[in-house]
Amino acid sequence: MTHLKKGLWGVLATPFSGPSFDVDTESLRREVALYTGIPSTGMVVLGVFGEGSTLDTAEQRLIVSTVAEAAGDTPLVVGLSARSTHVAIEQARTAVEAAGSNLDALMVQVNTPQPDALTAHFTAIHEATGADIVLQDYPVASGVKISTAQILAVVERCPFIAAVKSEAPPTAAAIAALTRATDVPVFGGLGGVGLIDELAAGASGAMTGFSHPEALQTAIEANDDGGFRAARDAFAPWLPLANFEGQPGIGLALRKEILKRRGIIADASVRPPSPTLPAELADMIDAHLDAVKELA
Amino acid sequence: MTHLKKGLWGVLATPFSGPSFDVDTESLRREVALYTGIPSTGMVVLGVFGEGSTLDTAEQRLIVSTVAEAAGDTPLVVGLSARSTHVAIEQARTAVEAAGSNLDALMVQVNTPQPDALTAHFTAIHEATGADIVLQDYPVASGVKISTAQILAVVERCPFIAAVKSEAPPTAAAIAALTRATDVPVFGGLGGVGLIDELAAGASGAMTGFSHPEALQTAIEANDDGGFRAARDAFAPWLPLANFEGQPGIGLALRKEILKRRGIIADASVRPPSPTLPAELADMIDAHLDAVKELA
Amino acid sequence: MTHLKKGLWGVLATPFSGPSFDVDTESLRREVALYTGIPSTGMVVLGVFGEGSTLDTAEQRLIVSTVAEAAGDTPLVVGLSARSTHVAIEQARTAVEAAGSNLDALMVQVNTPQPDALTAHFTAIHEATGADIVLQDYPVASGVKISTAQILAVVERCPFIAAVKSEAPPTAAAIAALTRATDVPVFGGLGGVGLIDELAAGASGAMTGFSHPEALQTAIEANDDGGFRAARDAFAPWLPLANFEGQPGIGLALRKEILKRRGIIADASVRPPSPTLPAELADMIDAHLDAVKELA
Amino acid sequence: MTHLKKGLWGVLATPFSGPSFDVDTESLRREVALYTGIPSTGMVVLGVFGEGSTLDTAEQRLIVSTVAEAAGDTPLVVGLSARSTHVAIEQARTAVEAAGSNLDALMVQVNTPQPDALTAHFTAIHEATGADIVLQDYPVASGVKISTAQILAVVERCPFIAAVKSEAPPTAAAIAALTRATDVPVFGGLGGVGLIDELAAGASGAMTGFSHPEALQTAIEANDDGGFRAARDAFAPWLPLANFEGQPGIGLALRKEILKRRGIIADASVRPPSPTLPAELADMIDAHLDAVKELA
Repeated sequence: MTHLKKGLWGVLATPFSGPSFDVDTESLRREVALYTGIPSTGMVVLGVFGEGSTLDTAEQRLIVSTVAEAAGDTPLVVGLSARSTHVAIEQARTAVEAAGSNLDALMVQVNTPQPDALTAHFTAIHEATGADIVLQDYPVASGVKISTAQILAVVERCPFIAAVKSEAPPTAAAIAALTRATDVPVFGGLGGVGLIDELAAGASGAMTGFSHPEALQTAIEANDDGGFRAARDAFAPWLPLANFEGQPGIGLALRKEILKRRGIIADASVRPPSPTLPAELADMIDAHLDAVKELA
Repeated sequence: MTHLKKGLWGVLATPFSGPSFDVDTESLRREVALYTGIPSTGMVVLGVFGEGSTLDTAEQRLIVSTVAEAAGDTPLVVGLSARSTHVAIEQARTAVEAAGSNLDALMVQVNTPQPDALTAHFTAIHEATGADIVLQDYPVASGVKISTAQILAVVERCPFIAAVKSEAPPTAAAIAALTRATDVPVFGGLGGVGLIDELAAGASGAMTGFSHPEALQTAIEANDDGGFRAARDAFAPWLPLANFEGQPGIGLALRKEILKRRGIIADASVRPPSPTLPAELADMIDAHLDAVKELA
Repeated sequence: MTHLKKGLWGVLATPFSGPSFDVDTESLRREVALYTGIPSTGMVVLGVFGEGSTLDTAEQRLIVSTVAEAAGDTPLVVGLSARSTHVAIEQARTAVEAAGSNLDALMVQVNTPQPDALTAHFTAIHEATGADIVLQDYPVASGVKISTAQILAVVERCPFIAAVKSEAPPTAAAIAALTRATDVPVFGGLGGVGLIDELAAGASGAMTGFSHPEALQTAIEANDDGGFRAARDAFAPWLPLANFEGQPGIGLALRKEILKRRGIIADASVRPPSPTLPAELADMIDAHLDAVKELA
Repeated sequence: MTHLKKGLWGVLATPFSGPSFDVDTESLRREVALYTGIPSTGMVVLGVFGEGSTLDTAEQRLIVSTVAEAAGDTPLVVGLSARSTHVAIEQARTAVEAAGSNLDALMVQVNTPQPDALTAHFTAIHEATGADIVLQDYPVASGVKISTAQILAVVERCPFIAAVKSEAPPTAAAIAALTRATDVPVFGGLGGVGLIDELAAGASGAMTGFSHPEALQTAIEANDDGGFRAARDAFAPWLPLANFEGQPGIGLALRKEILKRRGIIADASVRPPSPTLPAELADMIDAHLDAVKELA
């Protein structure tokens, strides 16, 4: 039983450049340095925020190996975008090979609410690779609704589940119910908009992307030290930006643009057909950045 | 041309009591007093947060007349839950009669993205009652997606449109595009989770429910006086609570429970099949209330 | 225990006329005569195909009383479009009073999959009016998914349930599972596109609209007399028209246009925002009508 | 300009066997023989009905090369399950290499309604491989709604589009509008449930799966020779089976079971999480097969 460590697991954006949206490994390494500098507990590569479903096999390999090389001994979780077993195993093999000794687990989305079928899916991936599994419940990406009881049934039957990523709002209620019933660590996501409540509900940390991940770390540490009130005081000043970035559809473009203005990635482009940044919001980004500069 | 005044338009919850979920007019009057005490610019009755679609004709009449009596000279907007013209006109007549001279406008949901058909729908309601119309774009409730260009086409052809309520995220982008193209006031909603950005995008205020509407008012006034930074500083401490209340599904039950703990309504029940409050969140509510007591 | 009788329960279209889409009672009476002439076992008024959700209270009353007067002793089921208890009871009272002694039951849509809450909803309507209830499972209209086990739990606890209308495809599987577990009659709908299989699965008949309801009756009688093969042979020649009419969105406009060309209703208009008839299909309607003339 | 030839393009099921759902190439060859024996105009490999999205790269290669070897000079269309450009190109390269000289086109799903972005997506795949493209409009699989005007804008700008597969009901209206505006051939799909109307609307044939594809061929030939009435008479006796197979969710399991009972594939299993065959329908399958034996 190898549960993920508590704390911040940062979901890396995949930086692209040029008209063909090629992977920009130099920007990617700067992003890794942002996280190892915090330092975060771990990093997540090829997640939904990493545009994992847009990456071909060679790109998946390039990204994971680039991150692994730059990560030092920071552990990695690698996301699988596939929804069916055989394709997930193909992606898993690429991930396991490229991540090497940095790999802590593979993150796999719920593809059915039926505990039997979901257990078989996770087991097949685990047996093909030996890797532990992070169960991701994110209906916006998967299109699947699963109940807390169904998640617990799967967790009980899959001892190789290293964590649950709970991203089906209302997350505070789901995380509270999960953490009362299992010792498997549960992480919140969704860009941190519910982080304060998720930590109060027993979450082991945040596993998400944010343009300013150091703020997520600060909130988690505050919660460890002072509980709800401390986490609330620490993260409230960041919520205007988290909510701004958390807007559906354009959130990814917004976050990459802010990472660009911070000097971390060179180009903020997202792969089509993801929505691009509305021109009307350009000034608002600067206003947000000015405001949080004083916080950092 | 009678546009709604800028500021806070508070969407009233409808308090119920007992096993039959009867309308509790005494609690309703206390809720009105909360808003007139701020004072808010206006109030919205029978909105989505007011559980308007669960109310029969007699209840609609009772609620609107109770609020009108208690409102003094505070203007009212009355929401129509119907999606088709004839039923909307029936509800509109009840609303107009019950609201009397307090009525500023009827709020009508977008029921089609086609500008011709939507113009005909609004026009029929306006002509049957003489009332001005607030166009509500809230796809979670209506199931309809409409573009900014389509909204503007309708606004141009309906001089009786008194305001637009923009609740299709990403709202900051939509409101920025709308306010650059029309003088009709645009209001944000969604419990205030995007209020800071909506005001920066040119919103005339907030038209929404929140357990602590005085905080919305504070943010709007701060924005008037000091712009983005002032609004941000004023509302950031309230965002933990706004995000907590804004959780999908259970948000209404949460908000009523907090109004009850504030002593404003006697019973927090919501009419089925709306989700009830998860027991796991009970303690978290107290923690949030303790934290904001120091802000108020 | 008063179960609905087996056979054809025809869902009546609501004919409109003029620019305001007024109810056309003369056409409605001709439509009733079509059904009593077959004769059908019963008729359903104010269903989804009857555009029930677009009708105000006075129109609901006018339509039901017009049909009741013209129906002789043919029993009626009256549909309620409301999804919440108080509004459903208001509609139910109008229906019960207007239908008089012709009323066999009220048809109520599933508004939640939770057996407890759904039982409470049906019970409240039953107790307020004394009427029996037809449980309608039609997720396209209700937005609610309910399992066969959940339907059976409700049926067991509500002895006043007179029938189940099963319209959640795959209907053949659902109806087979329901009819093996309960004696409450189960009816197919959906314009008859699955009628052959639904009857083979144990359905007590069809409760649906179709431009040529006599064909539904023929299929049901053939099934009674000769089983699957007879029903198949009888209805196969009608399936090209049933599939044509069953096209999503435009199906209602198509069916009304065919009823008009048959001389039954004077005007084929549907209330907005229902989709209107695509001009490209005008010729195809004639081709279909020519073909089935030889069958009738 | 190399448009697909008119007629029947059969979408091949992918037969699996054993607990790991391995590809069964022997069954696959028998399925190819079924189509070359008709003979069909062409075949479609790795479509939605071929469970394309569940197949890893090696399986894609194996299936396409097996079919190409067995197909003689029958042309092939190979479906791409990917929704983003880089992954689609990766799949396209596998397909082009494995199909060899049999390849007529790649079938690509609409991944955005925006004509500019969709044109760029198709162009990138075309330029990377030299292959022509079949535009597939199938919102059930893609989640994307595109208008006829948007499809036509893309078709005009992409001279390499070899056909449109129109599977967004109401298909008769869409196909009528498309075929009046473009010479690019348009094919119906959806298991043939709307075939009669689609041919009347100007479709160049059917591109779909059906347990008895010879019936689709008969209908297309009848339409060529005698128009609507002949097509109607030829296909009406098959519609009971087509509608039975066309049931959402379980349709794929049903069709494979019938192919198994016909002796074409050895095992009817579908890869999870696709729904399996409800036990209640087992007898109904035999009744359908008995009935159509006399037609064949």
